[in-house]
Amino acid sequence: MFEHTTKIRVRYGETDQMGYMYYGNYAEFYEVGRVEMLRSLGLTYSGMEASGIMMPVLEMKCKYLKPALYDEEITVKVIMDKMPGVKIHFRYEFFNEKEELIHLAETLLVFVNMATSRPCLPARDFLDKLKPFFK
Amino acid sequence: MFEHTTKIRVRYGETDQMGYMYYGNYAEFYEVGRVEMLRSLGLTYSGMEASGIMMPVLEMKCKYLKPALYDEEITVKVIMDKMPGVKIHFRYEFFNEKEELIHLAETLLVFVNMATSRPCLPARDFLDKLKPFFK
Amino acid sequence: MFEHTTKIRVRYGETDQMGYMYYGNYAEFYEVGRVEMLRSLGLTYSGMEASGIMMPVLEMKCKYLKPALYDEEITVKVIMDKMPGVKIHFRYEFFNEKEELIHLAETLLVFVNMATSRPCLPARDFLDKLKPFFK
Amino acid sequence: MFEHTTKIRVRYGETDQMGYMYYGNYAEFYEVGRVEMLRSLGLTYSGMEASGIMMPVLEMKCKYLKPALYDEEITVKVIMDKMPGVKIHFRYEFFNEKEELIHLAETLLVFVNMATSRPCLPARDFLDKLKPFFK
Repeated sequence: MFEHTTKIRVRYGETDQMGYMYYGNYAEFYEVGRVEMLRSLGLTYSGMEASGIMMPVLEMKCKYLKPALYDEEITVKVIMDKMPGVKIHFRYEFFNEKEELIHLAETLLVFVNMATSRPCLPARDFLDKLKPFFK
Repeated sequence: MFEHTTKIRVRYGETDQMGYMYYGNYAEFYEVGRVEMLRSLGLTYSGMEASGIMMPVLEMKCKYLKPALYDEEITVKVIMDKMPGVKIHFRYEFFNEKEELIHLAETLLVFVNMATSRPCLPARDFLDKLKPFFK
Repeated sequence: MFEHTTKIRVRYGETDQMGYMYYGNYAEFYEVGRVEMLRSLGLTYSGMEASGIMMPVLEMKCKYLKPALYDEEITVKVIMDKMPGVKIHFRYEFFNEKEELIHLAETLLVFVNMATSRPCLPARDFLDKLKPFFK
Repeated sequence: MFEHTTKIRVRYGETDQMGYMYYGNYAEFYEVGRVEMLRSLGLTYSGMEASGIMMPVLEMKCKYLKPALYDEEITVKVIMDKMPGVKIHFRYEFFNEKEELIHLAETLLVFVNMATSRPCLPARDFLDKLKPFFK
């Protein structure tokens, strides 16, 4: 299992008139969480795209347990339960400043060779960096 | 069963550098679809909030089958399979201009009394307008 | 002078906790207004990009006179005061449902040849369609 | 003069298919820059709203000099040239990772008493914290 935690503050523009973070904006927090998880391994998503591989999202699901409020620093925990193959699965747990669990989510992404538009395996380097976490 | 269809064009600001609509922006299309479905019944979500009831989202799940592209007019079909109670469930099917099914989603929302912050039943009027579709 | 008017409804996700449309979201309304103005001439921005010309924004300025509120259908009037050259200037006037002027804006864009990344003139066809409005 | 600098990384969802940060998303970076400037003084915008004062934006203008690219950490410098009264003016300078100036902007905001919806002076505390920078 591989875990990584990022903190992201809710922007004013991300709230809606209910006074909560708009439900559509959580997906951007997952994205930031995933990207920072990769960065913690010395990998960048921009580098992956530069090498010709992109990672579109195939599936997403989530539960909104409590609202995320303006200016709160949300703790975004990203969890990879198993080694990726052609597809890669992430789970997310969001905590507010009171350390309450406020949100649960999962996404399934696929590695795609940008030249052929076909699914592919991630780079060797990517897998090598993850292996130590899945023994 | 009650169904309603809305057309929404993908804005430039909704695309990302993959050249697709960003995966986080679909949720706003569900919202527009839901709101236009209510309007087709002579109801407005703003009117509901004015009457003291809001509808936060509890759960969402979706599958991205094919990308939605810039400037495409997406057909957003919203389906209510059963009469709402305290909670209301919506399904969504998105079709591109070639009439291909590109996206499937579901959301579960709850009616909340804004004064007490507690779940509640929707207004009588709301239920009366839906009843004919669920005999 | 060439003018075109589009109506755009404020989405819930575009509001913020002040209960107004978030000030950063107006720019997307300008974009939709510009694109629909081009479409009224039989031109599409996606077609322009497909032909190798893109139109990044160089300058923007605006005044927020009154708030745009959730679910209001905003009338977005786009005005081109003079024939474009390498650069193209647009003015915008927003009206709410009470026909009050609520927002004024201007943007300056440039035509860029995507192959060379250099400023260029728009296609002949584009200029020919605009000429009748500037005699 | 009072200055403050914040770093903000461009998210994937903030890019568009041109491969740049979408021109409408800069405004959210100004907001984050302003809010972090206030926080550096021990003030929070959420605290200001809780005390009954909000700060809607009246005017904005900006120049896009070079694109902000995905995953770049943008240095957002916020400058207050003079003491605020009922209105408060901010200037912004954005620098990319190569330390190139890529964007210039200005916003004018107004303090509004939320109870009366009328312009007002900011709290004493707010002015006291700023005074030392404007002697």
